[in-house]
Amino acid sequence: MFVNRRDVQIQWGDCDPANIVYYPRYFAMFDDSTSIMFEAAGYSKQDLVHKYGLVGIPMVDTRAKFHIPSTHGDWITIESRIESIKRSSFEVVHRVFKGEALAIEAFETRVLVGRHPDDPAKLKSAPFPQEIIDRFMKG
Amino acid sequence: MFVNRRDVQIQWGDCDPANIVYYPRYFAMFDDSTSIMFEAAGYSKQDLVHKYGLVGIPMVDTRAKFHIPSTHGDWITIESRIESIKRSSFEVVHRVFKGEALAIEAFETRVLVGRHPDDPAKLKSAPFPQEIIDRFMKG
Amino acid sequence: MFVNRRDVQIQWGDCDPANIVYYPRYFAMFDDSTSIMFEAAGYSKQDLVHKYGLVGIPMVDTRAKFHIPSTHGDWITIESRIESIKRSSFEVVHRVFKGEALAIEAFETRVLVGRHPDDPAKLKSAPFPQEIIDRFMKG
Amino acid sequence: MFVNRRDVQIQWGDCDPANIVYYPRYFAMFDDSTSIMFEAAGYSKQDLVHKYGLVGIPMVDTRAKFHIPSTHGDWITIESRIESIKRSSFEVVHRVFKGEALAIEAFETRVLVGRHPDDPAKLKSAPFPQEIIDRFMKG
Repeated sequence: MFVNRRDVQIQWGDCDPANIVYYPRYFAMFDDSTSIMFEAAGYSKQDLVHKYGLVGIPMVDTRAKFHIPSTHGDWITIESRIESIKRSSFEVVHRVFKGEALAIEAFETRVLVGRHPDDPAKLKSAPFPQEIIDRFMKG
Repeated sequence: MFVNRRDVQIQWGDCDPANIVYYPRYFAMFDDSTSIMFEAAGYSKQDLVHKYGLVGIPMVDTRAKFHIPSTHGDWITIESRIESIKRSSFEVVHRVFKGEALAIEAFETRVLVGRHPDDPAKLKSAPFPQEIIDRFMKG
Repeated sequence: MFVNRRDVQIQWGDCDPANIVYYPRYFAMFDDSTSIMFEAAGYSKQDLVHKYGLVGIPMVDTRAKFHIPSTHGDWITIESRIESIKRSSFEVVHRVFKGEALAIEAFETRVLVGRHPDDPAKLKSAPFPQEIIDRFMKG
Repeated sequence: MFVNRRDVQIQWGDCDPANIVYYPRYFAMFDDSTSIMFEAAGYSKQDLVHKYGLVGIPMVDTRAKFHIPSTHGDWITIESRIESIKRSSFEVVHRVFKGEALAIEAFETRVLVGRHPDDPAKLKSAPFPQEIIDRFMKG
């Protein structure tokens, strides 16, 4: 199972008047983490767009459980992996650690989409390329 | 049951290279919607901070299901209500409509927090003031 | 001269740990204001893209002077106008008022861009359509 | 003169429907860069708050000139330094490079602020601590 870890320092502008991270900022960090995981596996978002003709990997369903708050200056580690790949969607899990402690768990169901052949303005779900499945799920 | 509705126009900067809303932006809209619902009920966030000594209403657990995408120029209606109030947490539901169609459903579990009496740098969950419970849950 | 005014309420998530607006958020409000000014004049960003074949109106040079801070719950009025239109660029001025007081002044130099005819992946500056010039600069 | 350099990879969510960075995101990167420069010099924002009793370093006047666009996946280098320190304000310059090319120049005038002694809800400009001046301006 391919797992990507990255360290992120919380910045002043990530935080709200309660002096903790404004939670929508975490979703931006998680979206970055999913892209960076794909890139680390050898498939950058630019590749997905240009090589595979995809438009993006939009979110269908996402959830996050916040256990421990963070503030500016704190370092967190975001650990990301693809949990499962189905015919037309896949699931990503992010776990955020502060030191040893599990601070946040986040779950994503996403789809790969391309342009609709009959109307390029419309999006259409696309199958997951087998080589990318192999890269993420094997080993 | 107190319900707040507001119309939001999707802006250019809310959208990503796939030309649809970058989903973390929706969480910012939902957080705004929760604050605006409190204000519409007579309890602005400034009141919560100054009158009730609270620091904020941080998120504990949130989920969103995205059914229909939107792009810049689109108008959506966000309908928000408090679903339930427990001893130490409460649940908010947002439903986003494009015209008649349900575009997004979002669920929030939040807590009210104040300063810890022994250490003002720490946050501590606070009980929901009864008058606010009455305002949201009755009628 | 066409002038657009809109009222914006500062939200919790617009503010930082000092309890004042995190200034990059103002630039997002100003970008929204420029789009909304075009739409109010009869030329939505969707029209610019679809009717005129443009890709966007990117920023070349922008400056903002912050005179009076704001916090969540505050209402501001953003007054936007096109100051001048040159051959290949145009200038927008936003003035933010809190009540009668001038809180922020912002200046933008933007260009209209389309796809490069020889390489659609590249952007190329485009002339300002005369009918839009007339709309903004006359009367 | 103390100079801080950091490499930043543009992410999907930093970009708009024209597939280039949504410029307000650059201001967030610059704000981060100023904080990170202070931290690299030995004075984290947490130190400024807790050790020196400051509330923040708000922006008074900022300008950015955008020469070369970037898109997701691109790496940029942000080079930041304090240009001058006056009695009650200081100036920061950020230069963004894509490879060897100067992509963006940004200028900031900021002040240090603390709580007003007579009214903690109000902000008051504070003098720059001499040891921090020495750190940034000497050598």
